[in-house]
Amino acid sequence: MKALVYHGSGNRAWEQVPKPEVTHPADAVVRVDAVTICGTDLHILKGDVPEVEPGRVLGHEAVGTIESVGPAVLGRRPGDRVLISCITACGRCEYCRGGTYGQCQGGGGWTLGHTVDGTQAEYVRVPFADTSTHLLPEAVSDAAAVMLADILPTSYEVGVLNGRVTPGDTVVVVGAGPIGLAAIQTAQLYSPSHIVAVDLAASRLDAAKQFGADIVVNAADDPLTVIAELTDDLGADTVIEAVGVPESFELCTRLVRPSGHIANIGVHGRPATLHLEELWIRDITLTTGLVDTSSTPRLLRMLAAGRLDAERYITHRYGLDEIETAYDVFSRPADTGALKVVLSR
Amino acid sequence: MKALVYHGSGNRAWEQVPKPEVTHPADAVVRVDAVTICGTDLHILKGDVPEVEPGRVLGHEAVGTIESVGPAVLGRRPGDRVLISCITACGRCEYCRGGTYGQCQGGGGWTLGHTVDGTQAEYVRVPFADTSTHLLPEAVSDAAAVMLADILPTSYEVGVLNGRVTPGDTVVVVGAGPIGLAAIQTAQLYSPSHIVAVDLAASRLDAAKQFGADIVVNAADDPLTVIAELTDDLGADTVIEAVGVPESFELCTRLVRPSGHIANIGVHGRPATLHLEELWIRDITLTTGLVDTSSTPRLLRMLAAGRLDAERYITHRYGLDEIETAYDVFSRPADTGALKVVLSR
Repeated sequence: MKALVYHGSGNRAWEQVPKPEVTHPADAVVRVDAVTICGTDLHILKGDVPEVEPGRVLGHEAVGTIESVGPAVLGRRPGDRVLISCITACGRCEYCRGGTYGQCQGGGGWTLGHTVDGTQAEYVRVPFADTSTHLLPEAVSDAAAVMLADILPTSYEVGVLNGRVTPGDTVVVVGAGPIGLAAIQTAQLYSPSHIVAVDLAASRLDAAKQFGADIVVNAADDPLTVIAELTDDLGADTVIEAVGVPESFELCTRLVRPSGHIANIGVHGRPATLHLEELWIRDITLTTGLVDTSSTPRLLRMLAAGRLDAERYITHRYGLDEIETAYDVFSRPADTGALKVVLSR
Repeated sequence: MKALVYHGSGNRAWEQVPKPEVTHPADAVVRVDAVTICGTDLHILKGDVPEVEPGRVLGHEAVGTIESVGPAVLGRRPGDRVLISCITACGRCEYCRGGTYGQCQGGGGWTLGHTVDGTQAEYVRVPFADTSTHLLPEAVSDAAAVMLADILPTSYEVGVLNGRVTPGDTVVVVGAGPIGLAAIQTAQLYSPSHIVAVDLAASRLDAAKQFGADIVVNAADDPLTVIAELTDDLGADTVIEAVGVPESFELCTRLVRPSGHIANIGVHGRPATLHLEELWIRDITLTTGLVDTSSTPRLLRMLAAGRLDAERYITHRYGLDEIETAYDVFSRPADTGALKVVLSR
C-alpha cells in the first residue's frame, strides 16, 4: 500500500510500504476513507517532536472502514464505518477508567503518527480498536467526521472546558488558525458575552469573525488596551492560547483578569517565562492538556443532529494520492487560504 | 499609641504614632489584643513588596476588641472580640459577591500592613469592619484565633482546596515553614495516602513529621527519585509550592503527575521558567492565589469544636512592646526554632 512517510526533518514521501496487519488481539486494521493534515504534522516535519522517528507513517486523524479485527475486539466488525480518534486508549488503566484517555498509561495516548504508524495511508493498524474508534452514524459525512478526530474535541476540551467558559464571560482566543477557530466555535456553546480573537494575520482575523468572534485585534496593535477597555480594566475571564510560542503564552498571562483562567492548547517547543512576581497574588488557573476525546461521542451526536457545522473548516479537498500537494497547500495558509484539507479515497 | 513602623528596606521601629480614628462609615477601630508576624512581613522588610511605603505600620493578622465603629457598621459593636482577617473585603463588588474577597475591587483585598496601616500596633483601623472581621466564640483563645488570620486559611484555600487534594492522593509540600506546615496539617482533612515534605533544613523536616508528613526528603537529596518510586513513576497528584523562589516552583512542575495539580502559595519576587515544551501535553492545572478567607468561619467552627489544633504553630510568646525582639527571633528560624510568634497586650 501507499503511505506518507516521515524521513527526518523537512522530508516526507508518499511511497510504498507494507500493508499493516493485526499484531495484537485488540487491534483493528482500517481502510482509510478520509484523512486530514494537522498543524502538529507540520511541527513534526520541522523536527519539533523528536520522538517521531524517521520511517514513521504520519497522521492521527481519519475516517475509515474496519477491514479486520483481533480476537479481543468485541464492538467492531469488518465493514463498520468508524472515526479514528487522535487518541488511542487502552481503556483499562487508571487514567482511562477516569476518562483521561489522553494520558493513557497502558500503551495508548497520542500514538498514531507519533510512536506507531499513522493514518495518512491507505490502511492503518489501530490499537485498542474498541476504545480508540467511534462508530459513525449514517447521517454524518466522512469530511465532517474527520474534523472530530482532533481539532474540535481538542479545542472544546483543552480550550473551552479547561478554560471554564461560562455564560457572560469575555473570552480571548490568541491565535486564529484552525485550532483557534474551533475554540471560537465551541466557546459559543457556553454563551460568552464577547469572544475576542487575536492574531497577526488579517486573513485569520477575517476567518475568526466568520467563526463567531465579535471583536478581532491584530496582535501587532494593542490587545492589552482593547481588553482593558472592554472589561473595566479587569481583563478577560478566560484566555485560550492557540499558537504555541512563548510570546503568545506570555500575552495570555497579561490579558487574564484576577481569578481568570488561561487554557493552553498550543504545542510548545520552548519554555516560557511565567511572571509569578505578578501572578502569585492574582488567583490564576492555568491549564495544559492533550485532548482526551472524551467529548467525541457528544460532538458526534451534535453533528448528527445538525447542531455543529464541522465542514466549514474544509477549504481544500483532494484524492488520497494527492497528499504531497495537500501538504504544500496546507503549509502555506497565508498564500493558499487553507484552513483544513481533506483527502478522500 | 505605639506601632511597628516600616522605614524602608531593612528598617523598622516600635515607635509613637497617632492613634487611628474612624475615617469612613464602614470602619472600626480595634484595640489589638494579640498579633503575630508573617513571613510576608520579612519580605516587605527586604524591600520585596515595593508598594509598601515607608511610614506604613506593618501587620495583617490580629485578634482584638472593637473600640468604635462607623455608622455603616451594622454587625459589630464596641466590646466585641474579633479576629481581624488579613483580607479586608468591601462585601459589595462582583468579586466579594462571588466569595473571592482576596480580589476585592472595592477597596479591600490585602490592605492592612500593605496599603493601609496594619495590626502590629496598639490600635488599628479596620476598613469594612462587618466583612473584614469575624466574631470570636468564647471557647477560642486569642493565640489560636490569630493563626486563622492568615496562615491556616491561606494554606487551606490556596494550597489544599486549589490543589484539589482528594482521598488517596500523594501530596508533596515543597517548603516546610509555617505555611508549608499548615498545608500539611490541612491536607490531612482530605485523607491523602501520603504527604511528602521537601525542604533544605533538617529542623523543618522534623517539624513536618510532627505536623503529619509521613515522608520527608531533603531538597538537596533527590526528591524526584523519591516521588517516582512512591508513585510508579507517575508523580504526585498534588504539589504545593510553599517557598516562593523560581527553583522551588520549577521543582514542583517536575514532581507532578499527568493530570495533576500544582498549587502555588509562595510569595514570589522573580519570574520562573515554565517548561511548556514538556508540560503542554501533560494536563497540568497550575493555580496561584491570594487567600479569600472564605474558609475562616468554617475553620473557626473547627477550632471551637476542638477539631483543629492551631496553637501548635506558636513557639514564642511576647508582650506587644517586645515586638522588635520577636522580629529578631522570627527572622532567624534556623537558630531560634521559631515557627510562629504571638505578641499579646
